[in-house]
Amino acid sequence: MTNSTLRVALVQQCCSEDSEKNLNHSMDKIHQAAREGAQLVLLQELHTSHYFCQTEDTALFDLAESIPGPSTDTLGQLAKELDIVIVASLFERRAAGLYHNTAVVLDTDGSIAGIYRKMHIPDDPGFYEKFYFTPGDLGFEPINTSVGRLGILVCWDQWYPEAARMMALAGAELLLYPTAIGWDPRDDEAEQLRQQGAWITIQRSHAIANGIPVLSCNRTGHEADPSMQSEGIRFWGNSFVCGPQGEFIAQADADNETVLMADIDMQRSESVRRIWPYLRDRRIDAYYELVLRYRD
Amino acid sequence: MTNSTLRVALVQQCCSEDSEKNLNHSMDKIHQAAREGAQLVLLQELHTSHYFCQTEDTALFDLAESIPGPSTDTLGQLAKELDIVIVASLFERRAAGLYHNTAVVLDTDGSIAGIYRKMHIPDDPGFYEKFYFTPGDLGFEPINTSVGRLGILVCWDQWYPEAARMMALAGAELLLYPTAIGWDPRDDEAEQLRQQGAWITIQRSHAIANGIPVLSCNRTGHEADPSMQSEGIRFWGNSFVCGPQGEFIAQADADNETVLMADIDMQRSESVRRIWPYLRDRRIDAYYELVLRYRD
Repeated sequence: MTNSTLRVALVQQCCSEDSEKNLNHSMDKIHQAAREGAQLVLLQELHTSHYFCQTEDTALFDLAESIPGPSTDTLGQLAKELDIVIVASLFERRAAGLYHNTAVVLDTDGSIAGIYRKMHIPDDPGFYEKFYFTPGDLGFEPINTSVGRLGILVCWDQWYPEAARMMALAGAELLLYPTAIGWDPRDDEAEQLRQQGAWITIQRSHAIANGIPVLSCNRTGHEADPSMQSEGIRFWGNSFVCGPQGEFIAQADADNETVLMADIDMQRSESVRRIWPYLRDRRIDAYYELVLRYRD
Repeated sequence: MTNSTLRVALVQQCCSEDSEKNLNHSMDKIHQAAREGAQLVLLQELHTSHYFCQTEDTALFDLAESIPGPSTDTLGQLAKELDIVIVASLFERRAAGLYHNTAVVLDTDGSIAGIYRKMHIPDDPGFYEKFYFTPGDLGFEPINTSVGRLGILVCWDQWYPEAARMMALAGAELLLYPTAIGWDPRDDEAEQLRQQGAWITIQRSHAIANGIPVLSCNRTGHEADPSMQSEGIRFWGNSFVCGPQGEFIAQADADNETVLMADIDMQRSESVRRIWPYLRDRRIDAYYELVLRYRD
């Protein structure tokens, strides 16, 4: 490892209905990552619980917690103990009737370096997120940490080139996506492969368009649909790390829990942006209509 | 073929120094495509000449022509004769000292349906385009034709998610990229593969982000550097067509001239956008900074 190498770890895991058990499991994996030299650990989306958005149930708001709160206390302490940066993803209770899907960055001193509230909220059968999460109101602000300036985005954000670009324009050195995406077992294999391929491709494209590495940490395992209206979701894992040309550095498989380790050369962005200087040539005089819903 | 199927052809070719010969060669290939049932033919970037931007030479402005002009007359006549739509890519002389890299769409009645002037202009060793081409001043406007509303973008534009998004927001049903990109033979194979992979990935991502098919037609063959300062460019072909989830429909190889045929189901965008309704959830309240150069 050179001075410019950042060793990262992504914890791709299965979750149960027991939040304490899930968090302890994540912490075991964080310990393992630290033993292997990780300086930054990225957890998957909503790692303390099942992906509870398969149904709309007011009782499930009990899963939420405040930030700062119990999970950030525990993970902050761990970050300090292990001298690493941890990116967690929590169900945030901000006020009665006001909840967010929020990523939290714990720095090596145990403090909360910053939070990001998921800006783009999906809603489709099995992913009823608009019921649970108010869209973020903090914008696309990278978070400064002792290992660099992190552009944290969450799941559905990954489909929006705008989100990645805004983070890059604000100086993000890495893009990180905690995510929870999977297959509907009723879809045929060809459709499943198209979906997964699209998910990988769009995130690699953010690395390419912005000349910075991307880390995407996804859930694995099957979770049943409590409403029994579907066959649940088979989360497709495939957490990965790619470099600033979209080249794979590390990739997990679909169905196994993994602590995915990767070494990122933090100086490559400088050289890649010199040969592919996209930021130089953006036509900012002609982009105004990006803030329109549609041009009718 | 159903009623919603559009048969397209991409002409991936080598070019010589003889412009008349190049255009005749393209026309032969367009005839072939029409015989095979193509309704829309996409030509590669600057198909009437060598990729002349390897050096900066004022004499090369002689290659430019007016629009309408000789090439659009010839290709318009051919479009009418074959009852197809042709997307051409020309070096446009607009006035003394004012030139553009311009795509022209010839409709089935032989008329010019519209033009697009390349908005993002690259400039790096071997690709001295800022010397030759004034950046486009027509914005990102799709062009209505008898086979649909076409979002034409050119080469360097392909690296900009903003360009694809603007076309989609303005109702483009297809994205089409005439392009001329290749390897520097001095780069090692790993770097060459990263570059080509990035080029494919970023364009597939535009299909995914916008839920519309993408057609990319690239040059092939080696062209020497007239200045002898480099080993020239080995254009990497790999013209391809992908559907609205980024899935490959057809793909050419690197080194062979090809008339690449593909059948596009024009109704798939509707169904893909229903399951992945990205346009629904764009945070247009939070995208203002996309029109900034950078956030310092």
